Amino acid sequence: MAEKSLFDLRIEPQEVDFTMCVTVPALGSAVLNAAGVDAHGRGFGVDALFRERRCSWVLSRMAFEVDRRPEQYTDYRIATWISDYGRVLSTRNFTLTDAAGSEFGRAVTQWAMLDLERRSAVDLSEVGRAHDDAVVREPSPAERPRKIPAVEAAERTEHRVAYSDIDFNRHMNTMRYIDLIFDALPLELAASQRPLRLDIHFLRECRYGDLLTLGWERRGDLWLFGVSREGEEALRASVEWR
Amino acid sequence: MAEKSLFDLRIEPQEVDFTMCVTVPALGSAVLNAAGVDAHGRGFGVDALFRERRCSWVLSRMAFEVDRRPEQYTDYRIATWISDYGRVLSTRNFTLTDAAGSEFGRAVTQWAMLDLERRSAVDLSEVGRAHDDAVVREPSPAERPRKIPAVEAAERTEHRVAYSDIDFNRHMNTMRYIDLIFDALPLELAASQRPLRLDIHFLRECRYGDLLTLGWERRGDLWLFGVSREGEEALRASVEWR
Repeated sequence: MAEKSLFDLRIEPQEVDFTMCVTVPALGSAVLNAAGVDAHGRGFGVDALFRERRCSWVLSRMAFEVDRRPEQYTDYRIATWISDYGRVLSTRNFTLTDAAGSEFGRAVTQWAMLDLERRSAVDLSEVGRAHDDAVVREPSPAERPRKIPAVEAAERTEHRVAYSDIDFNRHMNTMRYIDLIFDALPLELAASQRPLRLDIHFLRECRYGDLLTLGWERRGDLWLFGVSREGEEALRASVEWR
Repeated sequence: MAEKSLFDLRIEPQEVDFTMCVTVPALGSAVLNAAGVDAHGRGFGVDALFRERRCSWVLSRMAFEVDRRPEQYTDYRIATWISDYGRVLSTRNFTLTDAAGSEFGRAVTQWAMLDLERRSAVDLSEVGRAHDDAVVREPSPAERPRKIPAVEAAERTEHRVAYSDIDFNRHMNTMRYIDLIFDALPLELAASQRPLRLDIHFLRECRYGDLLTLGWERRGDLWLFGVSREGEEALRASVEWR
């Protein structure tokens, strides 16, 4: 059986906001980067998948809990492991702990494998067997990504997908969606130390040049977000402040 | 006399574009992050300056040359050193070299020290003497930041400064200006492997909520950019493709 992969990191100056603590989007970026580097190191990163079978991992759902945002120059560790392969989705988990071993965040992500030529999801049953030695049979550290209700947008903004937004696939980068969401929040809430849980459900890919509409509404401590592209839903997200 | 500071880095997945090579803005971010971490390590980072004298370093001008953009997972090294202190500006230099020792980029940056209460530049003569043991008497690796002509904008776009744009000072982050500039370029040019030189001159700080206008024009292989805020010039930049 596999071991969890460990990444020892530090909160860098470009990752903090004016409270001198790391932003939630920057922590999310570190989490997703750890996923990419770990898959690459184990031989099933997007580079190898593309080369060997014209496939790519696509993030379908994400749940991300942040209890507190550490200060600049804080050392921390991300542990990541794949806990299971379903027929369509594989589950990759993360914990974030400080140097004293205290956990301050965790994430559960669910990934599909996309056949880039057929533009359809690959059945992961066979992949799961092939990658069985990479699976760590430890449960997810948080509730798996939740169902997110459709937003009844009280407020809206538009965003044109630009060079700085796109990833290696020319799609809008996951992290830039989290930026869009945090940019829509009131500044003092985005920069607060309130614990939160973020859920994201990716429905459709957005590409360079697409004009996106972000709508949002507040239901008490729950904020709901929706991104659409030419009238089609592309993403649902929620932020629950605890 | 001091030694150059060395940072051993790697091109990470979130730093590449669809060519699988690092973007110019991501390399620029790595350069400026190295400046912050080095100043911090030597005891005159923005955190210490603020604590000890309510001052901060402010980037005034930057010249950045990129000969080629290495691929994802390439190891590289940033060397950085302060070569001199003038009355108003100190000069910090950078070279970027790959594992074989081949230099693929370099930067020259000029920094003022801002008194945050008086909102005025500090005379660096005394600071220069105090920091003399941090100076490396080696010349800058490129022509210093050039004078940039005012843009006669043929095209324009607007940008509202958001949470994801601001730094610890609640000002628009330098790197986000470079993103804005690269987002305005034609995609195939921004993602090309053509060597380039970028010059930026920062004239006024932009803050959270400010509405910026970016204008640009092309003069052959030279692109000129200007950012204004409520009719006042905030930044001039040029990109020369070689």
